[in-house]
Amino acid sequence: MSKIPVGILGATGMVGQMYVHLLSDHPWFEAAYAAASPRSAGKPYREAVAGRWHAPGGWGGAGELIVEDANDLSKALDARRRGRCAFVFSALEMGKEETRRLEEAYAGAGIPVVSNASAHRWTADVPMLIAEVNPHHADIIPAQRKNRGWDTGFIAVKPNCSLQSYLTPLWALMEAGYEIKRLTVTTMQAVSGAGYPGVPSWDMIDNLVPYIEGEEEKSEREPLKILGAIKEGVFVNAPGPVISAHCNRVPVTNGHTACVSLEFGAKKPSIEEAKRIWAEFRALPQERGFPMAPPQPIILREEPDRPQPRKDRDAGKAMAVTLGRIRPCSVLDLRFTGLSHNTVRGAAGGGILNAELLTHKGYLG
Amino acid sequence: MSKIPVGILGATGMVGQMYVHLLSDHPWFEAAYAAASPRSAGKPYREAVAGRWHAPGGWGGAGELIVEDANDLSKALDARRRGRCAFVFSALEMGKEETRRLEEAYAGAGIPVVSNASAHRWTADVPMLIAEVNPHHADIIPAQRKNRGWDTGFIAVKPNCSLQSYLTPLWALMEAGYEIKRLTVTTMQAVSGAGYPGVPSWDMIDNLVPYIEGEEEKSEREPLKILGAIKEGVFVNAPGPVISAHCNRVPVTNGHTACVSLEFGAKKPSIEEAKRIWAEFRALPQERGFPMAPPQPIILREEPDRPQPRKDRDAGKAMAVTLGRIRPCSVLDLRFTGLSHNTVRGAAGGGILNAELLTHKGYLG
Amino acid sequence: MSKIPVGILGATGMVGQMYVHLLSDHPWFEAAYAAASPRSAGKPYREAVAGRWHAPGGWGGAGELIVEDANDLSKALDARRRGRCAFVFSALEMGKEETRRLEEAYAGAGIPVVSNASAHRWTADVPMLIAEVNPHHADIIPAQRKNRGWDTGFIAVKPNCSLQSYLTPLWALMEAGYEIKRLTVTTMQAVSGAGYPGVPSWDMIDNLVPYIEGEEEKSEREPLKILGAIKEGVFVNAPGPVISAHCNRVPVTNGHTACVSLEFGAKKPSIEEAKRIWAEFRALPQERGFPMAPPQPIILREEPDRPQPRKDRDAGKAMAVTLGRIRPCSVLDLRFTGLSHNTVRGAAGGGILNAELLTHKGYLG
Amino acid sequence: MSKIPVGILGATGMVGQMYVHLLSDHPWFEAAYAAASPRSAGKPYREAVAGRWHAPGGWGGAGELIVEDANDLSKALDARRRGRCAFVFSALEMGKEETRRLEEAYAGAGIPVVSNASAHRWTADVPMLIAEVNPHHADIIPAQRKNRGWDTGFIAVKPNCSLQSYLTPLWALMEAGYEIKRLTVTTMQAVSGAGYPGVPSWDMIDNLVPYIEGEEEKSEREPLKILGAIKEGVFVNAPGPVISAHCNRVPVTNGHTACVSLEFGAKKPSIEEAKRIWAEFRALPQERGFPMAPPQPIILREEPDRPQPRKDRDAGKAMAVTLGRIRPCSVLDLRFTGLSHNTVRGAAGGGILNAELLTHKGYLG
Repeated sequence: MSKIPVGILGATGMVGQMYVHLLSDHPWFEAAYAAASPRSAGKPYREAVAGRWHAPGGWGGAGELIVEDANDLSKALDARRRGRCAFVFSALEMGKEETRRLEEAYAGAGIPVVSNASAHRWTADVPMLIAEVNPHHADIIPAQRKNRGWDTGFIAVKPNCSLQSYLTPLWALMEAGYEIKRLTVTTMQAVSGAGYPGVPSWDMIDNLVPYIEGEEEKSEREPLKILGAIKEGVFVNAPGPVISAHCNRVPVTNGHTACVSLEFGAKKPSIEEAKRIWAEFRALPQERGFPMAPPQPIILREEPDRPQPRKDRDAGKAMAVTLGRIRPCSVLDLRFTGLSHNTVRGAAGGGILNAELLTHKGYLG
Repeated sequence: MSKIPVGILGATGMVGQMYVHLLSDHPWFEAAYAAASPRSAGKPYREAVAGRWHAPGGWGGAGELIVEDANDLSKALDARRRGRCAFVFSALEMGKEETRRLEEAYAGAGIPVVSNASAHRWTADVPMLIAEVNPHHADIIPAQRKNRGWDTGFIAVKPNCSLQSYLTPLWALMEAGYEIKRLTVTTMQAVSGAGYPGVPSWDMIDNLVPYIEGEEEKSEREPLKILGAIKEGVFVNAPGPVISAHCNRVPVTNGHTACVSLEFGAKKPSIEEAKRIWAEFRALPQERGFPMAPPQPIILREEPDRPQPRKDRDAGKAMAVTLGRIRPCSVLDLRFTGLSHNTVRGAAGGGILNAELLTHKGYLG
Repeated sequence: MSKIPVGILGATGMVGQMYVHLLSDHPWFEAAYAAASPRSAGKPYREAVAGRWHAPGGWGGAGELIVEDANDLSKALDARRRGRCAFVFSALEMGKEETRRLEEAYAGAGIPVVSNASAHRWTADVPMLIAEVNPHHADIIPAQRKNRGWDTGFIAVKPNCSLQSYLTPLWALMEAGYEIKRLTVTTMQAVSGAGYPGVPSWDMIDNLVPYIEGEEEKSEREPLKILGAIKEGVFVNAPGPVISAHCNRVPVTNGHTACVSLEFGAKKPSIEEAKRIWAEFRALPQERGFPMAPPQPIILREEPDRPQPRKDRDAGKAMAVTLGRIRPCSVLDLRFTGLSHNTVRGAAGGGILNAELLTHKGYLG
Repeated sequence: MSKIPVGILGATGMVGQMYVHLLSDHPWFEAAYAAASPRSAGKPYREAVAGRWHAPGGWGGAGELIVEDANDLSKALDARRRGRCAFVFSALEMGKEETRRLEEAYAGAGIPVVSNASAHRWTADVPMLIAEVNPHHADIIPAQRKNRGWDTGFIAVKPNCSLQSYLTPLWALMEAGYEIKRLTVTTMQAVSGAGYPGVPSWDMIDNLVPYIEGEEEKSEREPLKILGAIKEGVFVNAPGPVISAHCNRVPVTNGHTACVSLEFGAKKPSIEEAKRIWAEFRALPQERGFPMAPPQPIILREEPDRPQPRKDRDAGKAMAVTLGRIRPCSVLDLRFTGLSHNTVRGAAGGGILNAELLTHKGYLG
């Protein structure tokens, strides 16, 4: 069976490179079209990333692709006609407004867009997917198409990387019947989250920065859409949980750590019950064996000093959330520390898993 | 006017060295006696610390002191007779039980002990002092002496370094009439807090460790004694605030950062009011101009990305707490990030300030 | 075909763990016996390393092995009788003299020892092997056995990790007919080379240490034995090259970098010729396809800013040497920067490759 | 006696800030004029650097200076007329050609330029000064003025920061009568040398970069001019020593470390003699007690593991070179490791010391 040919917009950036790398041996998809800024256009991909390749392994066969200008939709349509671009992953790093318009242009022209960018996260009929949490949100796509008069195109996005270290564990508890009313979370986030060149080394040697622009707002608000419902063709936010986030940048290459204190509703699980729920949690991606899905989405560590970014970020093909330090909270109800790989689970890997979900549901087939 | 000659127990360790350094140009005190483990005994101080001096500057005149065995009380008593040891700073790094006994032996023999060690923090008649917060707790000393039949000796301690980045700000609000009911705090603590050799570099490169043994318990409980009352010659804990702490070790040399979310009682200050209280906060050490006191105990930074450890730990002679990111909290009431220098404010500098307070009150004169 | 069962002495240390990890899917060898200090003896391996596992992946089936006391030779002999220990890898971390005696005891009892330790590097009839450089040195083993009256046992060692980043490239040039008279080398070495806990983080944050005990002597002298000849059953050092080494410790987890300036004899290759020799260099491990051998032992990077430790240490299964910045030297003849993975190529991986070589030559079959 | 009012061009950059900081309590000079890019022009200095102040302390009275556009010479001339700008320090960060022209415009208009920039380092009649090494080179200034028809203006520069960790020690030996024929040097340089934002943190966590553009050429060539002679109004390079440099970027904030192997001419000092020469070395800045001069320009450390950047960079007011590991070299004659503070000794502090020298010689009075 032949692979689905996919395109990558923003293919030369830090997240775009991770897409290329992760797709280099993907069983369903094949990187067959690469687009980036005009500066890279016309060069073979391997040349366009020479001297600035940041992914852990190689680029596979994508090295020989000729990079096209991402702004030039006609190139993508031409590739589509030639069977080289069934849909695109968007890892665009341009301004929010340009990204929004460009993603809409691709979708309007019939090319589905599975995006990493934040531009359409709050668009009312665009699903913001974590495949283990809200796979049913994909089913807004027919309404989205109808709203906009699109036929084959659509836009689906993924949330910010910062919340991936705690939202799936929260969801596992909620799904098991425990309401979560509110939580405080302090993140310690890796520098790769800021792209390249990103954070200056001057600020990350013997130092940390207690602020990341826009990150706390995303950490607090995006979960409400992900946990929300579809009503009349648009998303309605969930009423809770209420989240208070402190987001910090720390000298770590990859891996976002989150210290969480949370409060349940009237029904509260014991520590042992919470651990059991997390250890046993499986969702659609696991049940259907999606290639990018971690076999176990939530991994528990019993050692007192885990999870640690360098040691745990690659667990479950860098797609799992590792939890540790699960204990009662004296202020709210329960405390834990969560960790996930921000450029795999929190970016390219999460995007590919979303595409697997959308393929499974027939929207990309 | 001549300086008061003081001794340092554990003078060759990381905190002991900081004492020696800070005393090298102190206007009231002079390091005149140094004691450490038997291994160092008999050597000139400069030789005992050769190849493992970790303080930022030099040791001043203390380099020529002959190091004595800290276990040998007779040496200290002899120094006392010769006018070389009016009291001691304890920076002992031995086991808790040995520390407890040794500090009691010194005090019992008439030598006051101003300690950094945790051994006596929960002894019912021993004050745990932050000079700006509970200077009146020093007044338990007569009762302590009476309880134990001591004449000139006594023991006074300081709390753990982790809470110094937030307790003084909490106290400033409480003193201004705002009850604080509870708070969640996540600390990102420097490696110097673990002494030397301390945390392996293997664990602090591209990594952090979400656990410090015993640290969360200290962060949560010690404030209750500091904020407590003296009743019938012993301390009674304050009923609150309830504290939930997540303590992390991060790759920073000096400077503990704390992300705090707190809840007030019925009366809640506005953000502006809280800022005003903090900016204007002054206490006994400032009023009396103690040499080690920071002119302004709480320094506010308005930039969105401060405080940062390397850039702010030295503020106010490394004795101030720097606050930033003061903003409402969606879960509790108010959020901020605090930072203090853990081996100065949180260790040797705080100990010296306590000794200044005790001198001012006549207990060390 | 069944795998050869091997033992690991010092199995719980940093290098021992790497052996266990690399053997977890090795096609020829299987970790079937684990020995360590008496403290670990009697525990299942997974329990003995719980909370201090430092290798990048897991331990495979070795987790269930019961750890034995490495000092108790009878346990190893018993395992040998049961077909669980055809030979041992020594990653002992005890003192030099104890290591020497213990390795001799194993070999004397008939168990071949393939060692990482430095104890026997200068024993006159013990080969110090880099499989690509001096595989013929293995052929001293019959003489070694005869000298000592051993039948099946023998000892073979590998050199220090610091020189692996430059010796193979030197050898490739020498083998191509270019004498190397002398060189200056400055290394920037990773902290894993010091084991665990190893270098304190206090010394590796915003800092480097321009000294590693004993390392410069090893870097300068060991190449002379490796390049030496066998004469009458013992090794005679090569007369050169003369090496001057500056060894530094830098804040890197894995990967030793070496800046080399070298001087040729009368015949000097051009830069292009040197590059061609390196790119084309293959040796016995490549020709015979040993499982641990990198397909290309020397990888050239043309970018001006490579090799870099985090980005290049894993090249060639972490067994290759990556070279860059190849250019003329104004003082000597040629300059380059070399990099290799110190705990794989420079330790456990190099040891396994040596065992593959010794198996190939029939000494371990 | 009133201070000389000075201007700073590029006052808001990393080096410009260090100038402002170091001048905040300078006994001879006072920062009275600040110029930067048009973007900062018109703002008070404290506002122009808000959120990007990188110097260790404060800016003193300079905070209230209104920043002017450095391209607008008329502003500087106006300040000069008002007695606010006797000369300027140039810390311009624009392109080389623009810098060259702008510095010439200031000097041509009568304002002496004491520069940190590399633009004029190879201009034949511009002195490149290290105050302890070639103070007599300042005496080319009358010839420079004559060559160009300038009256009060002139240009004097300082060399690159990378060579400051070894050139003064080399000079001390040369001055004592020992010719140095050649040397290999490997530097490990701090990130502040690249300015701000400079090196991305992605490249400086668990990593180093074995390349700094243009740095090796500067390290090798600039010493020849500094050690050269004035002939007929222009500089003639010294014939040696021949230098081969490997320049690396390492995760250190401040402090360049250099590992040096050097070869003497026929006359070779013993190790003890070299140490004695270095320990006793004093030059004009020390003899005349220039304010910025370190009391002892070369500090020897006898511990085997020093100098280290974080621990030694501030020695001698961050203006000294600290040497350690002085030992014979098996390839050349003598080896050592040198360290200096790159943004103080190697940049702003060195520039101020040059201005002190030029004041002493009457060129700035």
